[in-house]
Amino acid sequence: MAKGKPPYVAVCGSGEANQQEEAWAQEVGRLIAEAGAVLVCGGLGGVMDAAARGCEAAGGVSIGTLPGEGRDSASPHLTVSIPTGLGEARNALVVRAADAVIAIGGEFGTLSEIALALKLGKPVVGLRTWELAKEGLKVSAIIEATTPEEAVRVALDAIA
Amino acid sequence: MAKGKPPYVAVCGSGEANQQEEAWAQEVGRLIAEAGAVLVCGGLGGVMDAAARGCEAAGGVSIGTLPGEGRDSASPHLTVSIPTGLGEARNALVVRAADAVIAIGGEFGTLSEIALALKLGKPVVGLRTWELAKEGLKVSAIIEATTPEEAVRVALDAIA
Amino acid sequence: MAKGKPPYVAVCGSGEANQQEEAWAQEVGRLIAEAGAVLVCGGLGGVMDAAARGCEAAGGVSIGTLPGEGRDSASPHLTVSIPTGLGEARNALVVRAADAVIAIGGEFGTLSEIALALKLGKPVVGLRTWELAKEGLKVSAIIEATTPEEAVRVALDAIA
Amino acid sequence: MAKGKPPYVAVCGSGEANQQEEAWAQEVGRLIAEAGAVLVCGGLGGVMDAAARGCEAAGGVSIGTLPGEGRDSASPHLTVSIPTGLGEARNALVVRAADAVIAIGGEFGTLSEIALALKLGKPVVGLRTWELAKEGLKVSAIIEATTPEEAVRVALDAIA
Repeated sequence: MAKGKPPYVAVCGSGEANQQEEAWAQEVGRLIAEAGAVLVCGGLGGVMDAAARGCEAAGGVSIGTLPGEGRDSASPHLTVSIPTGLGEARNALVVRAADAVIAIGGEFGTLSEIALALKLGKPVVGLRTWELAKEGLKVSAIIEATTPEEAVRVALDAIA
Repeated sequence: MAKGKPPYVAVCGSGEANQQEEAWAQEVGRLIAEAGAVLVCGGLGGVMDAAARGCEAAGGVSIGTLPGEGRDSASPHLTVSIPTGLGEARNALVVRAADAVIAIGGEFGTLSEIALALKLGKPVVGLRTWELAKEGLKVSAIIEATTPEEAVRVALDAIA
Repeated sequence: MAKGKPPYVAVCGSGEANQQEEAWAQEVGRLIAEAGAVLVCGGLGGVMDAAARGCEAAGGVSIGTLPGEGRDSASPHLTVSIPTGLGEARNALVVRAADAVIAIGGEFGTLSEIALALKLGKPVVGLRTWELAKEGLKVSAIIEATTPEEAVRVALDAIA
Repeated sequence: MAKGKPPYVAVCGSGEANQQEEAWAQEVGRLIAEAGAVLVCGGLGGVMDAAARGCEAAGGVSIGTLPGEGRDSASPHLTVSIPTGLGEARNALVVRAADAVIAIGGEFGTLSEIALALKLGKPVVGLRTWELAKEGLKVSAIIEATTPEEAVRVALDAIA
């Protein structure tokens, strides 16, 4: 893939993830790297750190867009970290920098990233993440995947 | 209520709302003004414009935090408008400026505001808005109201 | 002046200003209010607080765009305050929300607001503020005023 | 230098630079890469593109923090590009992400980055860039360098 032209895929999830979520995130990070895509994330722990770790192990490039003013809380597995000092407003930057978003589990921060990505018309793939409904009817905006392989394949296909 | 010390309540909803939503928003805006609170919104049409209109009619103060670089798209009923030039990242500012959030209907932008408010630990009251779930189980983070009166009362009580 | 259509004038200066600067800021705030314009500022102490105080005394409307996440540090003289949580990135918002900028004295934060305003093509009037040069030659981008009256008149004329 | 722990150095300058400035920027980019530091810039043309080109040629890592919503205007020499959609507010991010700033020539955007960096207490080194004064007296906040070698050495020494 030509330099400067790879797809960018965001991986979103909780900074305090469970074992299953971290294992998925690491695998997603690895597959993103192997596909020659760039990984974008919020740069902290949990799912973010695991995804960066998987990406690093496969020789990939990852970006962590941090909420704070410094790098102290950054995952050590990131290729580059960007302290924004914007607090939760940085969630919009994670999504803006990505062509597609993969959400793994996640809390309200992840939900905001899912929503911002959908607002911007970017494909969102979920691995056991938030479920959305209105007036009792499911809103099928998040593409559901059941494995890291499926999640990455679907995300990359959606932006091909 | 002492100047500079009023509560700030955000009203979030679609820029292209239906008649029911606009009627609710106008009533919510009126009630916020009558309570001496300041109304915060995204400053555009639909729910935002209707809320500003209701607030204006009751002699209240409203702030519209706009996504674009100019005021062309601002509701004419706002007390003050703030073009941010931040795009959808301004949703974080709407929420940050508010002590509580009332969501009326809404699309993905509204969902992002709900999520950001919950992330920041601010009370969110919903009038026929998004419903959240994980693994098939409802997540009861949004306080459901059925009338504008209830929505405003619950929001103000939550921050009293 | 029709509601929603007034000019917005930013007043920028140090949070720890000297007596002369505060006196000028208060007078500038008063004159902005008397002209029916809306005052925008960074919302903190010093020049910002003095401008808000002058505006308040003349029955005007002022907006304080705060760098932090809360309102604790806000001037009590503001009509509305907006905690952005963006840190110094909020300087871009102060400028973006204004049609013209008046800089009174000031340190590096003020210089950043002057520079951002000039970048955006907005008129900047200075009262004993930064002087700019390149390769020993003065860059006359800031309109120099010697009194608050002149500063406000020139700013309003530039956007009329 | 351990991964994730390198210094980050921002290179700021005009998107439409002259030949001398571009040559300096390319050399600065090369030297940053050779020092094992990460280059941060605004991601567009002129000085930004030249710095990224120099960095790339030396096998270094560069980040371009773009003002727009897409990557169309990004330098093709960047390792990673980040479309922020924040407009000129992204200047605060360029500076925030850097431990030190090197300014080469530059217009008002560069001046805003110099000012924001100084506000944040980060060292700023200038190559024929803005000159600051107050009341006729030079303000020596920018460390003046006369060659790319000196600029990079001084910047790295200041953060060592």
